[in-house]
Amino acid sequence: MYKLIAFDGDDTLWHNEPLFRQAHVQLREMLGHYVDPEQVDDRLYQAELANLSIYGYGVTGFTLSMIETAIELSDGKISAEDIHKLAETGKSMLRAPTRIIEGAEAVLRQYANHPKYKVVLITKGDLIAQQLKIERSGFEDLFDGIEIVSEKDSLTYRNIFGRYGVEAEEAIMIGNSMKSDVLPVLACGATAIHIPYEITWVHEMVDQTEIENASIITAESIAHVPQVIEKLEQEKTSGSMEHV
Amino acid sequence: MYKLIAFDGDDTLWHNEPLFRQAHVQLREMLGHYVDPEQVDDRLYQAELANLSIYGYGVTGFTLSMIETAIELSDGKISAEDIHKLAETGKSMLRAPTRIIEGAEAVLRQYANHPKYKVVLITKGDLIAQQLKIERSGFEDLFDGIEIVSEKDSLTYRNIFGRYGVEAEEAIMIGNSMKSDVLPVLACGATAIHIPYEITWVHEMVDQTEIENASIITAESIAHVPQVIEKLEQEKTSGSMEHV
Repeated sequence: MYKLIAFDGDDTLWHNEPLFRQAHVQLREMLGHYVDPEQVDDRLYQAELANLSIYGYGVTGFTLSMIETAIELSDGKISAEDIHKLAETGKSMLRAPTRIIEGAEAVLRQYANHPKYKVVLITKGDLIAQQLKIERSGFEDLFDGIEIVSEKDSLTYRNIFGRYGVEAEEAIMIGNSMKSDVLPVLACGATAIHIPYEITWVHEMVDQTEIENASIITAESIAHVPQVIEKLEQEKTSGSMEHV
Repeated sequence: MYKLIAFDGDDTLWHNEPLFRQAHVQLREMLGHYVDPEQVDDRLYQAELANLSIYGYGVTGFTLSMIETAIELSDGKISAEDIHKLAETGKSMLRAPTRIIEGAEAVLRQYANHPKYKVVLITKGDLIAQQLKIERSGFEDLFDGIEIVSEKDSLTYRNIFGRYGVEAEEAIMIGNSMKSDVLPVLACGATAIHIPYEITWVHEMVDQTEIENASIITAESIAHVPQVIEKLEQEKTSGSMEHV
Protein backbone atom coordinates (compact mmCIF):
# COMPACT_ATOMS: atom_id res chain seq x y z
CA MET A 1 0.00 0.00 0.00
CA TYR A 2 1.09 3.56 -0.58
CA LYS A 3 2.08 5.57 2.47
CA LEU A 4 3.25 8.89 1.10
CA ILE A 5 1.73 11.22 -1.47
CA ALA A 6 4.00 14.00 -2.68
CA PHE A 7 2.93 17.02 -4.68
CA ASP A 8 4.99 19.37 -6.80
CA GLY A 9 4.13 23.06 -6.29
CA ASP A 10 4.80 25.22 -9.38
CA ASP A 11 2.31 24.52 -12.18
CA THR A 12 0.88 21.59 -10.24
CA LEU A 13 -0.78 23.28 -7.24
CA TRP A 14 -0.36 26.89 -8.39
CA HIS A 15 0.36 28.68 -11.66
CA ASN A 16 3.98 29.69 -12.15
CA GLU A 17 5.22 29.45 -15.73
CA PRO A 18 2.82 32.15 -17.05
CA LEU A 19 4.67 34.74 -14.92
CA PHE A 20 7.91 33.80 -16.66
CA ARG A 21 6.24 33.95 -20.07
CA GLN A 22 4.99 37.47 -19.40
CA ALA A 23 8.53 38.50 -18.52
CA HIS A 24 9.74 36.95 -21.79
CA VAL A 25 7.24 39.03 -23.73
CA GLN A 26 8.42 42.19 -21.99
CA LEU A 27 12.07 41.39 -22.74
CA ARG A 28 11.27 40.68 -26.39
CA GLU A 29 9.51 44.03 -26.74
CA MET A 30 12.32 45.85 -24.95
CA LEU A 31 14.92 44.36 -27.27
CA GLY A 32 12.76 44.77 -30.37
CA HIS A 33 15.05 47.57 -31.67
CA TYR A 34 18.07 45.31 -31.55
CA VAL A 35 17.14 41.73 -32.42
CA ASP A 36 14.37 39.36 -33.48
CA PRO A 37 12.11 37.92 -30.79
CA GLU A 38 13.40 34.38 -31.43
CA GLN A 39 16.93 35.52 -30.72
CA VAL A 40 15.78 36.90 -27.38
CA ASP A 41 14.20 33.63 -26.32
CA ASP A 42 17.17 31.70 -27.55
CA ARG A 43 19.80 33.87 -25.86
CA LEU A 44 17.83 34.08 -22.63
CA TYR A 45 17.55 30.33 -22.46
CA GLN A 46 21.28 29.96 -23.09
CA ALA A 47 21.98 32.41 -20.26
CA GLU A 48 19.61 30.58 -17.92
CA LEU A 49 21.23 27.25 -18.70
CA ALA A 50 24.74 28.61 -18.26
CA ASN A 51 23.80 30.22 -14.94
CA LEU A 52 21.74 27.37 -13.53
CA SER A 53 24.63 25.81 -11.65
CA ILE A 54 25.30 29.00 -9.68
CA TYR A 55 21.91 30.79 -9.63
CA GLY A 56 19.69 27.72 -9.32
CA TYR A 57 16.03 27.74 -10.34
CA GLY A 58 14.08 30.78 -9.36
CA VAL A 59 13.19 34.36 -10.04
CA THR A 60 16.34 36.12 -8.77
CA GLY A 61 18.54 34.06 -11.08
CA PHE A 62 16.05 34.50 -13.93
CA THR A 63 16.09 38.28 -13.42
CA LEU A 64 19.89 38.35 -13.56
CA SER A 65 19.78 36.22 -16.72
CA MET A 66 17.30 38.65 -18.30
CA ILE A 67 19.57 41.59 -17.45
CA GLU A 68 22.59 39.77 -18.87
CA THR A 69 20.67 38.95 -22.07
CA ALA A 70 19.47 42.55 -22.46
CA ILE A 71 23.00 43.90 -22.11
CA GLU A 72 24.47 41.38 -24.51
CA LEU A 73 21.83 41.53 -27.23
CA SER A 74 21.76 45.34 -27.19
CA ASP A 75 25.55 45.33 -27.37
CA GLY A 76 25.67 47.39 -24.19
CA LYS A 77 23.24 50.01 -25.52
CA ILE A 78 20.33 49.14 -23.22
CA SER A 79 19.52 51.98 -20.83
CA ALA A 80 19.78 51.78 -17.06
CA GLU A 81 16.09 52.62 -17.02
CA ASP A 82 15.25 49.50 -19.01
CA ILE A 83 17.43 47.38 -16.76
CA HIS A 84 15.62 48.85 -13.80
CA LYS A 85 12.34 47.75 -15.43
CA LEU A 86 13.61 44.19 -15.70
CA ALA A 87 14.60 44.19 -12.03
CA GLU A 88 11.14 45.50 -11.17
CA THR A 89 9.58 42.72 -13.23
CA GLY A 90 11.48 40.21 -11.12
CA LYS A 91 10.17 41.83 -7.96
CA SER A 92 6.58 41.77 -9.27
CA MET A 93 6.99 38.07 -10.01
CA LEU A 94 8.15 37.47 -6.44
CA ARG A 95 5.32 39.56 -5.01
CA ALA A 96 2.62 38.13 -7.26
CA PRO A 97 -0.27 36.45 -5.48
CA THR A 98 -0.19 32.64 -5.58
CA ARG A 99 -2.82 31.66 -8.15
CA ILE A 100 -4.10 28.25 -7.13
CA ILE A 101 -4.84 25.72 -9.86
CA GLU A 102 -8.49 24.75 -9.95
CA GLY A 103 -9.23 21.68 -7.90
CA ALA A 104 -5.90 21.64 -6.06
CA GLU A 105 -7.25 22.65 -2.68
CA ALA A 106 -10.02 20.05 -2.63
CA VAL A 107 -7.57 17.29 -3.51
CA LEU A 108 -5.08 18.39 -0.87
CA ARG A 109 -7.81 18.57 1.76
CA GLN A 110 -8.90 15.06 0.85
CA TYR A 111 -5.44 13.73 1.77
CA ALA A 112 -4.46 16.12 4.57
CA ASN A 113 -4.35 14.44 8.00
CA HIS A 114 -5.23 11.18 6.29
CA PRO A 115 -4.73 8.12 8.49
CA LYS A 116 -3.01 6.23 5.66
CA TYR A 117 -0.92 8.85 3.89
CA LYS A 118 1.77 11.34 4.71
CA VAL A 119 1.38 14.33 2.42
CA VAL A 120 4.52 16.15 1.36
CA LEU A 121 5.21 19.12 -0.88
CA ILE A 122 8.38 18.71 -2.94
CA THR A 123 9.22 21.87 -4.80
CA LYS A 124 12.37 23.33 -6.33
CA GLY A 125 13.60 26.90 -6.60
CA ASP A 126 14.62 29.80 -4.43
CA LEU A 127 14.07 29.05 -0.76
CA ILE A 128 12.39 32.31 0.19
CA ALA A 129 10.34 32.56 -3.00
CA GLN A 130 8.95 29.07 -2.55
CA GLN A 131 8.19 29.77 1.12
CA LEU A 132 6.31 32.92 0.14
CA LYS A 133 4.25 31.00 -2.41
CA ILE A 134 3.45 28.29 0.12
CA GLU A 135 2.42 30.87 2.75
CA ARG A 136 0.22 32.71 0.26
CA SER A 137 -1.36 29.47 -0.94
CA GLY A 138 -2.78 28.84 2.52
CA PHE A 139 -1.88 25.16 2.05
CA GLU A 140 0.96 25.09 4.58
CA ASP A 141 -0.98 23.21 7.25
CA LEU A 142 -2.22 20.61 4.81
CA PHE A 143 1.23 19.06 4.47
CA ASP A 144 3.05 16.73 6.83
CA GLY A 145 6.26 18.11 5.41
CA ILE A 146 7.58 20.68 2.96
CA GLU A 147 10.78 19.99 1.04
CA ILE A 148 12.34 22.80 -0.96
CA VAL A 149 15.18 21.38 -3.03
CA SER A 150 17.65 22.74 -5.54
CA GLU A 151 17.30 19.86 -7.99
CA LYS A 152 14.78 17.07 -8.39
CA ASP A 153 16.78 14.01 -9.29
CA SER A 154 16.44 10.38 -8.21
CA LEU A 155 18.80 10.85 -5.28
CA THR A 156 16.77 13.80 -4.00
CA TYR A 157 13.60 11.73 -4.07
CA ARG A 158 15.24 8.70 -2.49
CA ASN A 159 16.60 10.85 0.35
CA ILE A 160 13.25 12.51 0.97
CA PHE A 161 11.32 9.23 1.00
CA GLY A 162 13.94 7.86 3.39
CA ARG A 163 13.54 10.80 5.75
CA TYR A 164 9.81 10.14 5.95
CA GLY A 165 10.49 6.47 6.64
CA VAL A 166 8.87 5.08 3.52
CA GLU A 167 10.21 2.88 0.76
CA ALA A 168 10.22 4.26 -2.78
CA GLU A 169 7.58 1.65 -3.67
CA GLU A 170 5.27 3.22 -1.07
CA ALA A 171 5.50 6.73 -2.51
CA ILE A 172 3.53 8.53 -5.20
CA MET A 173 4.76 11.83 -6.67
CA ILE A 174 2.35 14.09 -8.53
CA GLY A 175 3.51 16.88 -10.82
CA ASN A 176 3.50 18.60 -14.18
CA SER A 177 7.12 18.14 -15.17
CA MET A 178 8.16 14.92 -16.89
CA LYS A 179 11.77 15.85 -16.25
CA SER A 180 11.52 16.78 -12.58
CA ASP A 181 8.40 15.12 -11.18
CA VAL A 182 8.02 11.93 -13.20
CA LEU A 183 11.15 10.38 -14.72
CA PRO A 184 13.48 10.66 -11.67
CA VAL A 185 10.67 9.35 -9.47
CA LEU A 186 10.17 6.31 -11.68
CA ALA A 187 13.93 5.82 -11.79
CA CYS A 188 14.10 5.42 -8.03
CA GLY A 189 11.28 2.89 -8.00
CA ALA A 190 8.43 5.11 -6.84
CA THR A 191 5.18 5.87 -8.63
CA ALA A 192 4.55 9.13 -10.46
CA ILE A 193 1.38 10.75 -11.74
CA HIS A 194 1.86 13.29 -14.49
CA ILE A 195 -0.57 16.20 -14.81
CA PRO A 196 0.18 18.07 -18.03
CA TYR A 197 0.25 21.86 -17.60
CA GLU A 198 -0.75 24.30 -20.32
CA ILE A 199 2.82 25.40 -20.98
CA THR A 200 6.23 23.88 -20.24
CA TRP A 201 9.58 25.63 -19.86
CA VAL A 202 11.89 24.25 -22.53
CA HIS A 203 14.35 23.13 -19.82
CA GLU A 204 11.69 20.85 -18.35
CA MET A 205 10.94 19.20 -21.68
CA VAL A 206 12.24 15.70 -22.28
CA ASP A 207 12.97 13.67 -25.34
CA GLN A 208 9.91 11.76 -26.54
CA THR A 209 11.82 8.47 -26.49
CA GLU A 210 12.46 8.84 -22.77
CA ILE A 211 8.73 9.03 -22.22
CA GLU A 212 7.91 6.18 -24.56
CA ASN A 213 10.27 3.90 -22.73
CA ALA A 214 8.57 4.58 -19.41
CA SER A 215 5.02 3.73 -18.51
CA ILE A 216 3.61 7.12 -17.64
CA ILE A 217 0.48 7.45 -15.56
CA THR A 218 -1.40 10.60 -16.43
CA ALA A 219 -4.16 12.51 -14.69
CA GLU A 220 -6.06 14.89 -16.91
CA SER A 221 -6.13 17.50 -14.15
CA ILE A 222 -5.40 17.61 -10.43
CA ALA A 223 -9.07 16.97 -9.78
CA HIS A 224 -8.61 13.54 -11.37
CA VAL A 225 -5.77 12.58 -9.05
CA PRO A 226 -7.89 10.83 -6.37
CA GLN A 227 -9.43 8.45 -8.86
CA VAL A 228 -6.00 7.66 -10.30
CA ILE A 229 -4.64 6.97 -6.82
CA GLU A 230 -7.61 4.77 -6.01
CA LYS A 231 -6.96 2.77 -9.17
CA LEU A 232 -3.28 2.46 -8.27
CA GLU A 233 -4.18 1.22 -4.81
CA GLN A 234 -6.53 -1.38 -6.28
CA GLU A 235 -3.87 -2.57 -8.70
CA LYS A 236 -1.37 -2.82 -5.89
CA THR A 237 -3.79 -4.77 -3.72
CA SER A 238 -4.67 -7.12 -6.54
CA GLY A 239 -0.97 -7.70 -7.13
CA SER A 240 -0.98 -6.30 -10.61
CA MET A 241 1.82 -3.93 -11.43
CA GLU A 242 0.24 -2.78 -14.67
CA HIS A 243 -0.02 0.98 -14.63
CA VAL A 244 -2.18 1.70 -17.61
CA MET B 1 24.13 15.72 28.42
CA TYR B 2 24.34 17.33 25.02
CA LYS B 3 23.32 15.24 22.04
CA LEU B 4 23.52 17.59 19.09
CA ILE B 5 26.21 20.04 18.01
CA ALA B 6 25.21 22.45 15.27
CA PHE B 7 27.55 24.66 13.30
CA ASP B 8 26.84 27.77 11.28
CA GLY B 9 28.60 27.84 7.88
CA ASP B 10 29.33 31.38 6.66
CA ASP B 11 32.08 33.08 8.67
CA THR B 12 32.09 30.21 11.16
CA LEU B 13 33.45 27.31 9.07
CA TRP B 14 34.39 29.30 5.97
CA HIS B 15 35.00 32.93 5.10
CA ASN B 16 32.06 34.70 3.50
CA GLU B 17 31.66 38.34 4.49
CA PRO B 18 34.98 39.44 2.91
CA LEU B 19 33.56 38.60 -0.54
CA PHE B 20 30.68 40.97 0.11
CA ARG B 21 33.06 43.66 1.37
CA GLN B 22 35.11 43.44 -1.83
CA ALA B 23 31.94 43.91 -3.86
CA HIS B 24 31.10 46.96 -1.72
CA VAL B 25 34.49 48.47 -2.51
CA GLN B 26 33.94 47.91 -6.24
CA LEU B 27 30.50 49.52 -6.10
CA ARG B 28 31.86 52.52 -4.18
CA GLU B 29 34.56 53.05 -6.79
CA MET B 30 32.11 52.63 -9.65
CA LEU B 31 29.77 55.23 -8.19
CA GLY B 32 32.60 57.56 -7.15
CA HIS B 33 31.62 60.07 -9.87
CA TYR B 34 28.13 60.36 -8.51
CA VAL B 35 28.12 60.10 -4.73
CA ASP B 36 30.20 59.73 -1.57
CA PRO B 37 31.25 56.24 -0.50
CA GLU B 38 29.13 56.44 2.68
CA GLN B 39 26.05 57.09 0.59
CA VAL B 40 26.78 53.95 -1.42
CA ASP B 41 27.01 51.78 1.68
CA ASP B 42 23.95 53.36 3.16
CA ARG B 43 21.79 53.09 0.05
CA LEU B 44 22.94 49.53 -0.65
CA TYR B 45 22.03 48.46 2.86
CA GLN B 46 18.61 50.08 2.52
CA ALA B 47 18.06 48.21 -0.74
CA GLU B 48 19.17 44.92 0.80
CA LEU B 49 16.84 45.40 3.76
CA ALA B 50 13.90 46.35 1.57
CA ASN B 51 14.49 43.35 -0.69
CA LEU B 52 15.22 40.78 2.01
CA SER B 53 11.65 39.57 2.26
CA ILE B 54 11.54 38.64 -1.44
CA TYR B 55 15.20 37.97 -2.34
CA GLY B 56 16.28 36.34 0.91
CA TYR B 57 19.90 36.20 2.04
CA GLY B 58 22.39 35.38 -0.64
CA VAL B 59 24.45 36.51 -3.57
CA THR B 60 21.77 36.68 -6.28
CA GLY B 61 19.65 39.04 -4.20
CA PHE B 62 22.73 41.02 -3.20
CA THR B 63 23.70 41.39 -6.86
CA LEU B 64 20.24 42.68 -7.75
CA SER B 65 20.42 45.12 -4.82
CA MET B 66 23.82 46.36 -6.05
CA ILE B 67 22.40 46.90 -9.55
CA GLU B 68 19.38 48.73 -8.12
CA THR B 69 21.64 50.93 -5.99
CA ALA B 70 23.92 51.73 -8.93
CA ILE B 71 20.98 52.77 -11.11
CA GLU B 72 19.40 54.89 -8.40
CA LEU B 73 22.52 56.64 -7.13
CA SER B 74 23.70 57.42 -10.66
CA ASP B 75 20.25 58.72 -11.47
CA GLY B 76 20.03 56.26 -14.35
CA LYS B 77 23.37 57.35 -15.83
CA ILE B 78 25.29 54.17 -15.02
CA SER B 79 26.33 52.32 -18.18
CA ALA B 80 25.16 48.85 -19.17
CA GLU B 81 28.83 47.90 -19.12
CA ASP B 82 29.12 48.81 -15.44
CA ILE B 83 25.94 46.90 -14.62
CA HIS B 84 27.40 43.94 -16.46
CA LYS B 85 30.48 44.22 -14.23
CA LEU B 86 28.29 44.07 -11.11
CA ALA B 87 26.53 40.98 -12.43
CA GLU B 88 29.93 39.41 -13.10
CA THR B 89 31.03 40.25 -9.55
CA GLY B 90 28.03 38.31 -8.28
CA LYS B 91 29.02 35.34 -10.43
CA SER B 92 32.61 35.47 -9.16
CA MET B 93 31.29 35.45 -5.59
CA LEU B 94 29.23 32.36 -6.36
CA ARG B 95 32.15 30.65 -8.08
CA ALA B 96 34.73 31.61 -5.47
CA PRO B 97 36.51 28.72 -3.78
CA THR B 98 35.32 28.00 -0.24
CA ARG B 99 38.05 29.39 2.03
CA ILE B 100 37.98 27.30 5.18
CA ILE B 101 38.52 29.05 8.50
CA GLU B 102 41.65 27.84 10.24
CA GLY B 103 40.96 25.04 12.67
CA ALA B 104 37.45 24.31 11.41
CA GLU B 105 38.23 21.00 9.77
CA ALA B 106 40.01 19.54 12.81
CA VAL B 107 37.11 20.49 15.08
CA LEU B 108 34.53 19.03 12.70
CA ARG B 109 36.50 15.80 12.39
CA GLN B 110 36.68 15.56 16.17
CA TYR B 111 32.87 15.43 16.37
CA ALA B 112 32.04 13.66 13.09
CA ASN B 113 30.64 10.15 13.60
CA HIS B 114 30.86 10.75 17.34
CA PRO B 115 28.98 8.18 19.42
CA LYS B 116 27.48 10.91 21.62
CA TYR B 117 26.74 13.76 19.25
CA LYS B 118 24.81 14.34 16.09
CA VAL B 119 26.59 17.02 14.08
CA VAL B 120 24.45 19.34 11.98
CA LEU B 121 25.21 22.29 9.72
CA ILE B 122 22.62 25.04 9.99
CA THR B 123 23.19 27.72 7.40
CA LYS B 124 21.06 30.40 5.80
CA GLY B 125 21.07 31.81 2.28
CA ASP B 126 20.48 30.75 -1.31
CA LEU B 127 19.92 27.01 -1.55
CA ILE B 128 22.24 26.35 -4.48
CA ALA B 129 24.94 28.75 -3.31
CA GLN B 130 25.09 27.13 0.11
CA GLN B 131 25.17 23.67 -1.44
CA LEU B 132 28.07 24.71 -3.66
CA LYS B 133 29.98 26.03 -0.65
CA ILE B 134 29.35 22.84 1.29
CA GLU B 135 30.47 20.67 -1.63
CA ARG B 136 33.61 22.73 -2.11
CA SER B 137 34.39 22.66 1.61
CA GLY B 138 34.74 18.88 1.51
CA PHE B 139 32.91 18.77 4.85
CA GLU B 140 29.68 17.27 3.52
CA ASP B 141 30.31 13.77 4.91
CA LEU B 142 31.24 15.10 8.35
CA PHE B 143 27.65 16.12 9.10
CA ASP B 144 24.74 13.95 10.16
CA GLY B 145 22.51 16.55 8.59
CA ILE B 146 22.61 19.77 6.61
CA GLU B 147 19.88 22.35 7.09
CA ILE B 148 19.72 25.30 4.72
CA VAL B 149 17.13 27.75 6.00
CA SER B 150 15.81 31.12 4.89
CA GLU B 151 15.83 32.65 8.40
CA LYS B 152 17.43 31.65 11.66
CA ASP B 153 14.86 32.41 14.32
CA SER B 154 13.86 30.50 17.43
CA LEU B 155 11.14 28.60 15.60
CA THR B 156 13.61 27.46 12.96
CA TYR B 157 15.96 26.11 15.63
CA ARG B 158 13.17 24.46 17.60
CA ASN B 159 11.91 22.71 14.46
CA ILE B 160 15.37 21.51 13.50
CA PHE B 161 16.17 20.17 16.97
CA GLY B 162 12.78 18.45 16.94
CA ARG B 163 13.49 16.79 13.62
CA TYR B 164 16.70 15.33 15.02
CA GLY B 165 14.84 14.06 18.06
CA VAL B 166 16.63 16.19 20.65
CA GLU B 167 15.35 18.66 23.21
CA ALA B 168 16.58 22.26 22.95
CA GLU B 169 18.45 21.69 26.24
CA GLU B 170 20.46 18.96 24.55
CA ALA B 171 21.62 21.13 21.66
CA ILE B 172 24.59 23.46 21.20
CA MET B 173 24.77 25.90 18.30
CA ILE B 174 28.10 27.42 17.29
CA GLY B 175 28.38 30.50 15.10
CA ASN B 176 29.66 34.00 14.51
CA SER B 177 26.39 35.90 14.41
CA MET B 178 24.84 37.10 17.67
CA LYS B 179 21.64 37.78 15.80
CA SER B 180 21.32 34.50 13.91
CA ASP B 181 23.40 31.92 15.74
CA VAL B 182 23.26 32.96 19.38
CA LEU B 183 20.24 34.97 20.57
CA PRO B 184 17.47 32.90 18.89
CA VAL B 185 19.19 29.73 20.09
CA LEU B 186 19.26 30.96 23.68
CA ALA B 187 15.65 32.08 23.31
CA CYS B 188 14.51 28.55 22.55
CA GLY B 189 16.36 27.11 25.52
CA ALA B 190 19.40 25.69 23.78
CA THR B 191 23.06 26.54 24.34
CA ALA B 192 25.03 28.77 21.97
CA ILE B 193 28.73 29.37 21.55
CA HIS B 194 29.68 32.63 19.90
CA ILE B 195 32.87 32.84 17.84
CA PRO B 196 33.46 36.46 16.86
CA TYR B 197 34.43 36.93 13.21
CA GLU B 198 36.70 39.69 11.98
CA ILE B 199 33.84 41.61 10.35
CA THR B 200 30.08 41.59 10.77
CA TRP B 201 27.42 42.65 8.28
CA VAL B 202 25.45 45.50 9.82
CA HIS B 203 22.24 43.48 9.50
CA GLU B 204 23.69 40.82 11.79
CA MET B 205 24.64 43.32 14.48
CA VAL B 206 22.54 43.48 17.62
CA ASP B 207 21.94 46.07 20.23
CA GLN B 208 24.46 45.87 23.06
CA THR B 209 21.70 45.66 25.68
CA GLU B 210 20.39 42.48 24.08
CA ILE B 211 23.76 40.90 24.59
CA GLU B 212 24.21 42.20 28.12
CA ASN B 213 20.92 40.67 29.15
CA ALA B 214 21.97 37.25 27.93
CA SER B 215 24.81 35.16 29.25
CA ILE B 216 26.93 34.70 26.17
CA ILE B 217 29.46 31.91 25.94
CA THR B 218 32.33 32.85 23.70
CA ALA B 219 35.07 30.83 22.05
CA GLU B 220 38.05 32.86 20.92
CA SER B 221 38.26 30.84 17.70
CA ILE B 222 36.77 27.64 16.33
CA ALA B 223 39.85 25.78 17.57
CA HIS B 224 38.76 26.66 21.11
CA VAL B 225 35.31 25.13 20.68
CA PRO B 226 36.13 21.62 21.98
CA GLN B 227 37.41 22.95 25.31
CA VAL B 228 34.33 25.14 25.67
CA ILE B 229 32.08 22.17 24.97
CA GLU B 230 34.00 20.06 27.46
CA LYS B 231 33.51 22.72 30.10
CA LEU B 232 29.80 22.92 29.29
CA GLU B 233 29.49 19.17 29.62
CA GLN B 234 31.22 19.26 33.00
CA GLU B 235 28.95 22.05 34.24
CA LYS B 236 25.92 20.13 33.07
CA THR B 237 27.10 16.97 34.80
CA SER B 238 27.86 18.81 38.02
CA GLY B 239 24.40 20.33 37.89
CA SER B 240 25.65 23.85 37.63
CA MET B 241 23.97 26.01 35.07
CA GLU B 242 26.55 28.77 35.31
CA HIS B 243 27.90 29.48 31.86
CA VAL B 244 30.83 31.71 32.52
